[in-house]
Amino acid sequence: MENRQWILKRRPQGDIRDGDLVFETSPVPKPKPGEIVIRNEWLSLDPTNRVWMSDIPQYMPPVPLDAPMRGFVVGQVTDSAADAYAVGDHVMGIGSWSDYSCQPAHMLSPVPVIPGISRKDVFGQFGIVAPTAYFGLLDIGEPKIGETLLVSGAAGAVGSIAGQLGKVWGCKVVGIAGGKQKCDWITDVLGFDHAIDYKSENVDARLRELCPEGIDIYFDNVGGETLNTALGQMNLFGRVIQCGMISSYNNDAKDAAPANYPMILMQRLKVQGFIVIDSAMRYPEAFRALSKLRLEGRLHWRHHEIKGLEQAEKAVRMLYSGENTGKLMIKVSDIEE
Amino acid sequence: MENRQWILKRRPQGDIRDGDLVFETSPVPKPKPGEIVIRNEWLSLDPTNRVWMSDIPQYMPPVPLDAPMRGFVVGQVTDSAADAYAVGDHVMGIGSWSDYSCQPAHMLSPVPVIPGISRKDVFGQFGIVAPTAYFGLLDIGEPKIGETLLVSGAAGAVGSIAGQLGKVWGCKVVGIAGGKQKCDWITDVLGFDHAIDYKSENVDARLRELCPEGIDIYFDNVGGETLNTALGQMNLFGRVIQCGMISSYNNDAKDAAPANYPMILMQRLKVQGFIVIDSAMRYPEAFRALSKLRLEGRLHWRHHEIKGLEQAEKAVRMLYSGENTGKLMIKVSDIEE
Repeated sequence: MENRQWILKRRPQGDIRDGDLVFETSPVPKPKPGEIVIRNEWLSLDPTNRVWMSDIPQYMPPVPLDAPMRGFVVGQVTDSAADAYAVGDHVMGIGSWSDYSCQPAHMLSPVPVIPGISRKDVFGQFGIVAPTAYFGLLDIGEPKIGETLLVSGAAGAVGSIAGQLGKVWGCKVVGIAGGKQKCDWITDVLGFDHAIDYKSENVDARLRELCPEGIDIYFDNVGGETLNTALGQMNLFGRVIQCGMISSYNNDAKDAAPANYPMILMQRLKVQGFIVIDSAMRYPEAFRALSKLRLEGRLHWRHHEIKGLEQAEKAVRMLYSGENTGKLMIKVSDIEE
Repeated sequence: MENRQWILKRRPQGDIRDGDLVFETSPVPKPKPGEIVIRNEWLSLDPTNRVWMSDIPQYMPPVPLDAPMRGFVVGQVTDSAADAYAVGDHVMGIGSWSDYSCQPAHMLSPVPVIPGISRKDVFGQFGIVAPTAYFGLLDIGEPKIGETLLVSGAAGAVGSIAGQLGKVWGCKVVGIAGGKQKCDWITDVLGFDHAIDYKSENVDARLRELCPEGIDIYFDNVGGETLNTALGQMNLFGRVIQCGMISSYNNDAKDAAPANYPMILMQRLKVQGFIVIDSAMRYPEAFRALSKLRLEGRLHWRHHEIKGLEQAEKAVRMLYSGENTGKLMIKVSDIEE
């Protein structure tokens, strides 16, 4: 049986270019003891993928060269050499950009059954992005009723949830996004109080206009100049959730240092890095909260679905140009619900 | 009665230069309602003085031009138009670089009486520096037994206390200081495990050698390249106490952004600004802890005393060149204990 895979051939310099990843075909591997093979149904494409392709210091080992590209997947077990899983089980977790991922069983877990939430939504939202928004904002942001929350990448998968949670928790919420369509979506559909279009507006000036009271919490997904602007307008004892720095991923995080760094001292800010894997033990808490809000109609999301594994390499580039609208996912194969 | 004062005439550009401050004589002012006049006994010189001379964004209003330079003082009330104080009371707090400071009474407080601790030590250590080290390390650093604590400005007033507290709390403590004499003092007298002489050693390489296990807590008093080096060697979930950035005070905090900023995200660091005035309500806790350690012989400090108010302007420059050894204080007048 054949297995198509995206192989990391070369670490991208700057933007991902043709030839950094190549699409190859090989036989489906047999699992070694402790491993399972899964037929992938969905592949999630996430900003952090670009970090894994590089060899800058990062929170997981970089993807080795000549190995299948790593990705977050959901699928069904087709072969198992691990006690915990049997053929036919639905699992999700760390896999690869492949028709079939062969992984140590501990990299995956059973797809949680959450009443009222489809498997696609469990994977696309509850797997990574919504818990990222939930724990990042709750634990580091410590939102208080009446505070002002700024979210960058606000129409993105994590940012859009973070802003909605900010509204639930009683904050004034301002989002920064690229383009009128995204800005309209976060205000009109998601209920953000204001949107700033970084492609057509001066973020610093517009922010001062919209938030003369200053910013109490900044949920940062982008880093770079937006982070610098936010640091310059934070209130005393403000909190910065350093969740992503997508603006610098394509230059290996060079020049990512904000000139306003000394405001951390002057305003006694707390700036804290956040990666959701650290909160894995508390996922049930996030599932309970997020599914309740979803079933009450208070939490919206959208998926940007692209059909075919062969599209993955072109699709992932959309994240860095901001072309995607909603959580970016590749439909790899059809598996019954 | 005459009052000699240092007047801020010009905001320093770069290093403090002759003429930025001028020494003038005027009559001792009469207090307006709510004010008191105190005869200064000691004037504390602190790195933050340079920040107050500038007009960069900061945690207090900048000192106005043509006004007496602001400073932390202890002295005796000579004239009072405030109910809370009578002539003869010993007070300390925010005053000016003057023989006599005329201040709103709420800027000062009675000198706390701490058994076994002299008024000079209460002022020089318990007023600002030791509580800064105590609350900064305890609240932001959250030290655990067996963790590794790095302190910059380690022979300075705050850093020397922070390192000693780190030992009390069970940490391995490494200090960065300038010159052999200071390095010997922090290891041989204060009990730091290791010292790095930034004037003669490669801090990055030496730190990797001394701390192959990585850094859990960084108590930063200096900012700049030292901060950047530390960020590059922090462990997962490390904490950075951003207490001072003396290396950049003389260039108005320009170029103070650490290139390793993205490590905050990758290592999920907490970087938090700290200024001790925010902990004012909890001073009794610090006094209890610090005086107990002092009386047990477990906490050492030294004062660098200079006689004469006329020396203040030359003396404050020592802080930025690292010439002072110990807490820098100007003896303004003799007042009986």
